Amino acid sequence: MDFLLQLLLILIVAKFFGELFERVGIPAMIGEIGAGIVLGPAILGIVVMGDTLKIFSDIGIITLLFISGVEMDVGLIAKSKGIAASTALAGVVVPFVTGWIIGTFFGLTFFETLFIAIVLSVTSIGISVRTLIDMKKINTIVGTTIVSAAVLDDIIGIFLIAVLISFASQGTFSPGSFLPAIAVSLIFLVVFLTVGKVFILKLFSWTRKTETHEMVYSTALIIGIASAYLAHSAGLHYSIGAFIAGAILGGQIRSDRVLLDSLMDVAFGFFVTIFFVSIGLLFTPDWNTVFTPLLFPIIILAFAGKIAGGFIGSGPFMDWRSSLVVGIGLCPRGEITLVIANIALAAGIITAGLYSSVTVMVIVTILLTPFMMKKAFSSADSSVDTGE
Amino acid sequence: MDFLLQLLLILIVAKFFGELFERVGIPAMIGEIGAGIVLGPAILGIVVMGDTLKIFSDIGIITLLFISGVEMDVGLIAKSKGIAASTALAGVVVPFVTGWIIGTFFGLTFFETLFIAIVLSVTSIGISVRTLIDMKKINTIVGTTIVSAAVLDDIIGIFLIAVLISFASQGTFSPGSFLPAIAVSLIFLVVFLTVGKVFILKLFSWTRKTETHEMVYSTALIIGIASAYLAHSAGLHYSIGAFIAGAILGGQIRSDRVLLDSLMDVAFGFFVTIFFVSIGLLFTPDWNTVFTPLLFPIIILAFAGKIAGGFIGSGPFMDWRSSLVVGIGLCPRGEITLVIANIALAAGIITAGLYSSVTVMVIVTILLTPFMMKKAFSSADSSVDTGE
Repeated sequence: MDFLLQLLLILIVAKFFGELFERVGIPAMIGEIGAGIVLGPAILGIVVMGDTLKIFSDIGIITLLFISGVEMDVGLIAKSKGIAASTALAGVVVPFVTGWIIGTFFGLTFFETLFIAIVLSVTSIGISVRTLIDMKKINTIVGTTIVSAAVLDDIIGIFLIAVLISFASQGTFSPGSFLPAIAVSLIFLVVFLTVGKVFILKLFSWTRKTETHEMVYSTALIIGIASAYLAHSAGLHYSIGAFIAGAILGGQIRSDRVLLDSLMDVAFGFFVTIFFVSIGLLFTPDWNTVFTPLLFPIIILAFAGKIAGGFIGSGPFMDWRSSLVVGIGLCPRGEITLVIANIALAAGIITAGLYSSVTVMVIVTILLTPFMMKKAFSSADSSVDTGE
Repeated sequence: MDFLLQLLLILIVAKFFGELFERVGIPAMIGEIGAGIVLGPAILGIVVMGDTLKIFSDIGIITLLFISGVEMDVGLIAKSKGIAASTALAGVVVPFVTGWIIGTFFGLTFFETLFIAIVLSVTSIGISVRTLIDMKKINTIVGTTIVSAAVLDDIIGIFLIAVLISFASQGTFSPGSFLPAIAVSLIFLVVFLTVGKVFILKLFSWTRKTETHEMVYSTALIIGIASAYLAHSAGLHYSIGAFIAGAILGGQIRSDRVLLDSLMDVAFGFFVTIFFVSIGLLFTPDWNTVFTPLLFPIIILAFAGKIAGGFIGSGPFMDWRSSLVVGIGLCPRGEITLVIANIALAAGIITAGLYSSVTVMVIVTILLTPFMMKKAFSSADSSVDTGE
């Protein structure tokens, strides 16, 4: 099918579903992901993920994380650094350990056990960020903790995935095959947060003095995409570069309301929608093999592990209702998990049944998290309102 | 090369060249086209036109024409209908006839003569529209005449191209092979301007009442792209559908300043830039064969024919300086001409030398027209200012 027609189908069905869902109180993004499930291989099979669509979707996650960086108060991130680190750590360790236990309990192979442990440990940031922005909660201590912990989780996740791939390709644990890549990622982060930051701020101030009318807008997009691209080249996920670039430019962009509105329009009105639809398109369980005894334990652990981890990690720093929200905010798994699952399936280290179970788990966490966050936030808020 | 890297190169070099040119008084779009020439096969050859880039470029011309439709006062178009028709007709007939004469004079084959006549008759609307928007002249009688005449030219051009392709593929004039296609185009236009118009207006009003925050923005883009896609499916160029859709929604979008600004940002700050760079990328003359005796006559005729035609067609309705601007505004040839040239070359009905000459002619008209329009406009304006 002609790509423009695919794009139109994606946008029309996604916006229609989003509106429909919004009217009955379900977050619009669930409708957008649902549009992808309906249009994609899981149901109708009329839209498939191709190279061009992947680019639009990548720009979607880039603009989403760039804007979440922009909206976030850097001072608040700095203040909650310790909370984020503690939350990220517990939010990885607890699911990893529980994943390992369940794998051993079900008598799975070493690789399958490692796979489950890793898949349960990786957080996907998009869903929680969109929910936090929609609820105007991104600039609260809970919001910054969720986002910063998820970004740190992502970095830890890269390490875990490198380990898994090293195992999958060589059948043994050989640090030499992935340590250099991790060193590159860390060096990138250090350079980006020092030299890169100064350069980005200088470049952006310069564009305010240019003759070209849309220069500030173009530069914001260029910086966001370039940072994402560099992060990706350094072995990290696009979202990390885009998020940091957004946070660096946050003050300057927030003070220009027209620019911020315009960037939010192109993100949420176009590219981010395509990203959420793409998540739905990636949902390709094999219905014949999906109902393994592992399906429900994996889904329950996906929630329990992250909620417990987030709760334990952030608990010492905030009231228990808030740290419950933090735990819930770490639950969504996303395209990274699906990519790992595809690599593992292709490498033959997991069965088709395990693959399908994980795919279903991803979608369930994505679909349920926004509700649970809303509920938990309103309960946390009302406890504050009543002076508890 | 990774597509995101290509995209970044395109945006960075284009915006840099655009700013540089703007500072020395040359329109930014010339810098953007220049960026395409430098990055593309003509010079460095590090960026090539691929499928994904083509989509971004298509969305560029779609948003450009959509916005020019939005900015244009429909009342003024209706009032200048007669002028537009007369200008479009003379603007095609004069170049066609002069093209035929020059082909005969140089002793070219029948096909080559027909090719030159057609190539000289087709106008590309993007350059003039961008210049008119930049100069805030789109809502003058000169502006509406140029744009409406160019749109009509485009429709006539589709007919001429159909004739050429019919000749090229069958070696003889057989109306049966292209008349059905032309009928489809005309039926589409009638349906679009009646039923389509009512539907678009209803749909857009409805989106104002939706719950989804960016719905109006998304719907504007969806309507623009969908109209372009339908026009294209009916055998017309994307730009015609996008332009008409923009004109239909003009009143509603112009009254929402935030929405209009946001649409202009995504167009001129992102997609339109990619479109202009793509024009430069399509510039692939064969320098060994380009210097035929035909090169300079074709370039001179490309200007002379359209200026004379536009002048004759619009002369009876406005002062002579204004109708000179109209003629100049019809001069640019663009991607349609390049596509025809590629078809003709592939079909073996023109020589490589003629192909390269036409390619150079296209770039010269694109690069010179914005200057000439600026000059002519300021001379026309000053004659009005002094009460002439």
